[in-house]
Amino acid sequence: MSEPARRPARPRGLTHVDESGEARMVDVSGKQVSARTARATGRVLVSAEVVALLRGDGVPKGDALGVSRVAGIMGAKRTPDLVPLCHPIALTGVKVDLTVADDAVEIAATVRTADRTGVEMEALTAVSVAALSVVDMVKAVDPGAVITDVRVEEKAGGVSGDWRRPS
Amino acid sequence: MSEPARRPARPRGLTHVDESGEARMVDVSGKQVSARTARATGRVLVSAEVVALLRGDGVPKGDALGVSRVAGIMGAKRTPDLVPLCHPIALTGVKVDLTVADDAVEIAATVRTADRTGVEMEALTAVSVAALSVVDMVKAVDPGAVITDVRVEEKAGGVSGDWRRPS
Amino acid sequence: MSEPARRPARPRGLTHVDESGEARMVDVSGKQVSARTARATGRVLVSAEVVALLRGDGVPKGDALGVSRVAGIMGAKRTPDLVPLCHPIALTGVKVDLTVADDAVEIAATVRTADRTGVEMEALTAVSVAALSVVDMVKAVDPGAVITDVRVEEKAGGVSGDWRRPS
Amino acid sequence: MSEPARRPARPRGLTHVDESGEARMVDVSGKQVSARTARATGRVLVSAEVVALLRGDGVPKGDALGVSRVAGIMGAKRTPDLVPLCHPIALTGVKVDLTVADDAVEIAATVRTADRTGVEMEALTAVSVAALSVVDMVKAVDPGAVITDVRVEEKAGGVSGDWRRPS
Amino acid sequence: MSEPARRPARPRGLTHVDESGEARMVDVSGKQVSARTARATGRVLVSAEVVALLRGDGVPKGDALGVSRVAGIMGAKRTPDLVPLCHPIALTGVKVDLTVADDAVEIAATVRTADRTGVEMEALTAVSVAALSVVDMVKAVDPGAVITDVRVEEKAGGVSGDWRRPS
Amino acid sequence: MSEPARRPARPRGLTHVDESGEARMVDVSGKQVSARTARATGRVLVSAEVVALLRGDGVPKGDALGVSRVAGIMGAKRTPDLVPLCHPIALTGVKVDLTVADDAVEIAATVRTADRTGVEMEALTAVSVAALSVVDMVKAVDPGAVITDVRVEEKAGGVSGDWRRPS
Repeated sequence: MSEPARRPARPRGLTHVDESGEARMVDVSGKQVSARTARATGRVLVSAEVVALLRGDGVPKGDALGVSRVAGIMGAKRTPDLVPLCHPIALTGVKVDLTVADDAVEIAATVRTADRTGVEMEALTAVSVAALSVVDMVKAVDPGAVITDVRVEEKAGGVSGDWRRPS
Repeated sequence: MSEPARRPARPRGLTHVDESGEARMVDVSGKQVSARTARATGRVLVSAEVVALLRGDGVPKGDALGVSRVAGIMGAKRTPDLVPLCHPIALTGVKVDLTVADDAVEIAATVRTADRTGVEMEALTAVSVAALSVVDMVKAVDPGAVITDVRVEEKAGGVSGDWRRPS
Repeated sequence: MSEPARRPARPRGLTHVDESGEARMVDVSGKQVSARTARATGRVLVSAEVVALLRGDGVPKGDALGVSRVAGIMGAKRTPDLVPLCHPIALTGVKVDLTVADDAVEIAATVRTADRTGVEMEALTAVSVAALSVVDMVKAVDPGAVITDVRVEEKAGGVSGDWRRPS
Repeated sequence: MSEPARRPARPRGLTHVDESGEARMVDVSGKQVSARTARATGRVLVSAEVVALLRGDGVPKGDALGVSRVAGIMGAKRTPDLVPLCHPIALTGVKVDLTVADDAVEIAATVRTADRTGVEMEALTAVSVAALSVVDMVKAVDPGAVITDVRVEEKAGGVSGDWRRPS
Repeated sequence: MSEPARRPARPRGLTHVDESGEARMVDVSGKQVSARTARATGRVLVSAEVVALLRGDGVPKGDALGVSRVAGIMGAKRTPDLVPLCHPIALTGVKVDLTVADDAVEIAATVRTADRTGVEMEALTAVSVAALSVVDMVKAVDPGAVITDVRVEEKAGGVSGDWRRPS
Repeated sequence: MSEPARRPARPRGLTHVDESGEARMVDVSGKQVSARTARATGRVLVSAEVVALLRGDGVPKGDALGVSRVAGIMGAKRTPDLVPLCHPIALTGVKVDLTVADDAVEIAATVRTADRTGVEMEALTAVSVAALSVVDMVKAVDPGAVITDVRVEEKAGGVSGDWRRPS
């Protein structure tokens, strides 16, 4: 075929709605099962008082971050229950890290699968649910906490290839 | 401030962990059942291409935003399943609005209850889940979408009184 | 105001979408908590062979119907997880009956609550889930089973008053 | 009876209960993973007033059908949570269509998997949950709506072979 | 037997099945909303090696018990999803304690509500789910761990009165 | 490598927490998909009165045990929702048996999969949830019922090899 350039590369569209605008769970039957990973991050902006409490200056901080880590891991597993058009897939590993920075709790989640679709949504859901749990934990002290910068950092595996957030 | 001595002896702490740092679902048996409302907002930063698609310039956009609105409403109901220390409460109303702005999808959720605890977490969960659904919808076009500024705007009802985000 | 009768009784509309067509969970905060009941019925049309098996002519039929009864009861509790705009409410009683008729399994469900909304949807969900379980049980023998006539028979309690299906 | 030999050696029975009548989730470990599809349909009989509202004669109908489409897709994913003896399987695609006919909302669902069991139950659950959502949406206008004719139309893939409802 | 009159008129039976042996969720509409509490305990018998690891002799034990505490709290909230005939009720407080003894992890859960039924099942579910999580955590080291002595210790509130396990 | 014996066989630890004590869902991406089975048992100690009722001496016992069997089967499917660090896996078969002994209801569960991890937790969860359902069923007659001896009896398949409880 001599004119590949002319084919307008089929204007990319919203894959989750069909040509008449109706939502569907996209058919991935034809995609290969392969190892896939995604990493997402996010932050919960909190007051200085919360940072001091979470750093546990002289006080047992105990489960304060641990609860949110568990929430994030369990949240990753609930992704297809929450995000309407996500495929239910078999997660093979989930890691959620929370770090107390000077003005925020920083969250990072890495999710792995061996399935037909990527796991960006699972990583983002892990971060979001961990973040919600952090807010719940600190809201009596700081009702103004803000969840921000929840985003995919990189993903690997699958046909669409690897992707890394431009720095 | 000249009167630190007046501050009550027991410094505010993380209500969801006890004195030894262990998590628990706080006992609210003694709190009054009353009408409570919370409103939260958030944004999903997306590319110009996504904005054009969502505005449906000449194309049926159909369910594109509707799916996320439903996701947000259903997400509010799943809050106690997701946030470990949240009380299961009876929601009496949930409204989720999505608006396409020039560089983002803006989300606002209002949740109502007549129960013993506030519904900030339900409002934040509604916004977060709607935002995750938006990202899922646009990620094939814009893998770099970012969920940001998820926060309580105001809450009303209950003993702790009304609160409005300082502008 | 002297003419309440003239106000055109605001043309009834789809209560679950607002004036711009957007879905929301209707605010019922102002409604009274009261005892409410709903009864729904439905049928699963099955082959004569299935009827014989379910009647257990000389064979232990054991859990065949019991499983579907449990499915229906549990299904009623899942209503707000399934029906997007349903309020989560506290069910105070659920009864599901299955009867083997000559060409069908007949299902009836009665659901009770003491809350702010009616329980028609819970009764219909109980019948539907019980019916799905019946189909699952018999589908190896009769792949053509049909769920039919799933409907509210009567409801009582609440402001909108009692309703009974016209016979 | 003179011809026992003709009767197939093992009379077909209810596969989901064992010889003593006890329910179990049938062991499918030995079955092949293969592509499978099922299509189911159903109808919600509604009043003429509802049909007019859903056709949106001069009114924004917006999410009215979209909500039920999402409900159906999400419902398909909940099948193993609802139908006690269903295997949890990995759905690879779900499509739910709703059409407003003259006296009913017609629903069709197509579900795909690449797993060890068929997806009839998932297709039927998608239709049933979408139908429940339609009833919820219209019940204030038409409390007498009826879900009917929920049935498998055809299935393909797997050892038991293809099946199509006799017309 | 000569004294039928003395036998209480209605022999106590299994409240969750009716006179024909069919399961139902008992109607509690007529019961009073009141404050109720239940406390349950249980133990997971583990090897000496596990005890040493959990006591964290020189090693960070971190989340080892915290994860199970969260599992127990979240498990309490899932009770009506798990136990078929349990009423969904509004929990107002859940506390789960885990203690490492010489040959076991000891678990205690206290659950509170202000509703129409007791919360024994919620307390037992909290203990059971926390115990399952402990087993999951230690099973690579001790595949023989045993969950034992899961039982209600006391309950208070409601019509049936207080109950305390005989010592 | 000449000195495998010297490597101190890396002291076994709690696989579900990392070197800093933080919980994670262990990465099993590298493990082989293979057929795996696990069998677990447990008992619910009940009063003589309950045993008589469950044996149905002259009374229809109907669903009394059937409900708990269904609860156990459905419980197995909920394992990853309940046990925070369990992988979601595809169960290919679940069987739950309940037997009324002289002082207890005995429960046994067998779970099968073809996946990357064992199914001990699923078998234990099936037993635990069935046991909880038994307690719920009998608690009005015997508030002192005790769940005991919940444990894995044997497992087969996977790299770690077969294991059978020492007798």
